[in-house]
Amino acid sequence: MHLLVTGAAGMIGRKLLDRVAESGLPGGVPVTAMTLADVIEPDVAVGFGGSRTCVTADLSQPGTAERLIAERPDVIVHLAAVVSGEAEADLEKGYRVNLDGTRALFDAIRLAEDYMPRVVFASSLAVFGAPFPERIADDFHLTPLTSYGAQKAMGELLLDDYSRRGMLDGVGLRFPTICIRPGKPNKAASSFFSGILREPLNGQDAVLPVGDDVRHWFASPRAAVDFILHAAVMDTSVLGQRRSLTMPGLSATVADQIEALREVAGEDAIARIRREPDPDVARIVAGWPRDFDTARAREAGFRAETSFRQIIDVYLEDEMGGREPGAPAA
Amino acid sequence: MHLLVTGAAGMIGRKLLDRVAESGLPGGVPVTAMTLADVIEPDVAVGFGGSRTCVTADLSQPGTAERLIAERPDVIVHLAAVVSGEAEADLEKGYRVNLDGTRALFDAIRLAEDYMPRVVFASSLAVFGAPFPERIADDFHLTPLTSYGAQKAMGELLLDDYSRRGMLDGVGLRFPTICIRPGKPNKAASSFFSGILREPLNGQDAVLPVGDDVRHWFASPRAAVDFILHAAVMDTSVLGQRRSLTMPGLSATVADQIEALREVAGEDAIARIRREPDPDVARIVAGWPRDFDTARAREAGFRAETSFRQIIDVYLEDEMGGREPGAPAA
Repeated sequence: MHLLVTGAAGMIGRKLLDRVAESGLPGGVPVTAMTLADVIEPDVAVGFGGSRTCVTADLSQPGTAERLIAERPDVIVHLAAVVSGEAEADLEKGYRVNLDGTRALFDAIRLAEDYMPRVVFASSLAVFGAPFPERIADDFHLTPLTSYGAQKAMGELLLDDYSRRGMLDGVGLRFPTICIRPGKPNKAASSFFSGILREPLNGQDAVLPVGDDVRHWFASPRAAVDFILHAAVMDTSVLGQRRSLTMPGLSATVADQIEALREVAGEDAIARIRREPDPDVARIVAGWPRDFDTARAREAGFRAETSFRQIIDVYLEDEMGGREPGAPAA
Repeated sequence: MHLLVTGAAGMIGRKLLDRVAESGLPGGVPVTAMTLADVIEPDVAVGFGGSRTCVTADLSQPGTAERLIAERPDVIVHLAAVVSGEAEADLEKGYRVNLDGTRALFDAIRLAEDYMPRVVFASSLAVFGAPFPERIADDFHLTPLTSYGAQKAMGELLLDDYSRRGMLDGVGLRFPTICIRPGKPNKAASSFFSGILREPLNGQDAVLPVGDDVRHWFASPRAAVDFILHAAVMDTSVLGQRRSLTMPGLSATVADQIEALREVAGEDAIARIRREPDPDVARIVAGWPRDFDTARAREAGFRAETSFRQIIDVYLEDEMGGREPGAPAA
């Protein structure tokens, strides 16, 4: 089994490849070859025992997609994308990478003879746009309010069309907001959702720019990797013509997050959260979805965390290297 | 006021341009210049008194879009498309014309300085796919089951995104099945819906391949032109971020069609309809929508026929040149 991952150097790509290097695909499917593609050198899964090829390339450039599939990978995980903020700031780059890059990959597959790989496409909740019902069904209409969301929705349409025509075997995954993201805060408006847990767990202060009653939709990085691995091996006949699915997640408030942090790390950790209301962030977050009905994905076998305690435990196990919660890194 | 029409040589394009040449845009807005674009010479609106420029060109070819908007038309009606059957038979041509051509036009507009024209985009009910509810709401999810439908849905997403970003002022129109189409039968599975009326009205025999209880969604060619003219001048602020609308139409059965024909042309005309059940056509038509809730479009001022008698009367007035119903053309 040969696995190709685009966007291999990103946070999810790294975790996915490390997991595959360690234990293959679900159901004991062995991976004997990996192709790792990204615009920067994907320095991951270095301990992998099989054939490991790194390609530093931009999918939207002519010839790149053909090169990536030259060895006919059985499973392709397409994570490469320009993120939301950048796609909004640079319209041309967003369409070039998120639409043209995806289409170049799908077309290279289409034009290869006797070839129909499984393609796992990273889509996004950004395909949906407000106004929302309190709980958003899988068949809520596509109304993206960002260029990134429009590009991902177009990718879903391509995935459906090419799958229907038997040119590839696609599964599109709309990921929840990933929490707790490891590493440093970033400029995304959602950054605080990870920060108010991650920073106190590491003995640092964090800023909370919104009210405790703000509700959002979450899963851990580990759950995100689980989604991809399941999509790589699942029976796609259950999907019919609709190849994209809203992934399971946890609908939780900031208060739920803080309560789980208190349980794990005590009052000292809570005291590190500084409330600094930011009307701009509050306004952005007010337009975000709060809860989803993911019956379709759960019936298809996808699973995620069901409490914020579980989400924090994933961080402790995968990122803290055995340190006590609340202790600064050495 | 300068009007650009792509796909100007098609049936709707011709009728639109003849109407504009005669009476301008609604509300007495005068049209002083027209640019007519198509892959074949658009030999229409020849009596137009203003400046009339014909361009024989393919929008998906580099430089064409820039050429078409060089004079900064105030209103652009984008009808050019590869039809459903051809887009299914030739995937590359369908994506090139229906997606790349549309994007080339929108990008040329985006890159032109100080320019934000009204853009009327011809979308399609093919953006929706079965299974359907009995009556399909405007916010039913996009699930195209043809490449044509996928391309039109992607065009709608582009139109929304570029409108949201202030690069153009878009209105997307999802047309009903147009009936009665003038001219000869064609190979479309829907051809009989026009044929069972048009042929008897012209003293010829027609074949009905499905049962009398088959229900579908219709408007006349004249209503289609009315939709475009209204979209060209309407106040788009009522659309918010969702620029595409399911146009009003008439939900009617084959039996309703035949009854209206009887009223207009009598038993002799009815006797010209020969029932030859075709399971292939019946199967295709069974997957088509039967009824739509078009409250949004009606609130925005769009109107269509409310009986099949009206639809037939449009044909008599616009296509029969004063002949009696049932009389063969000279």
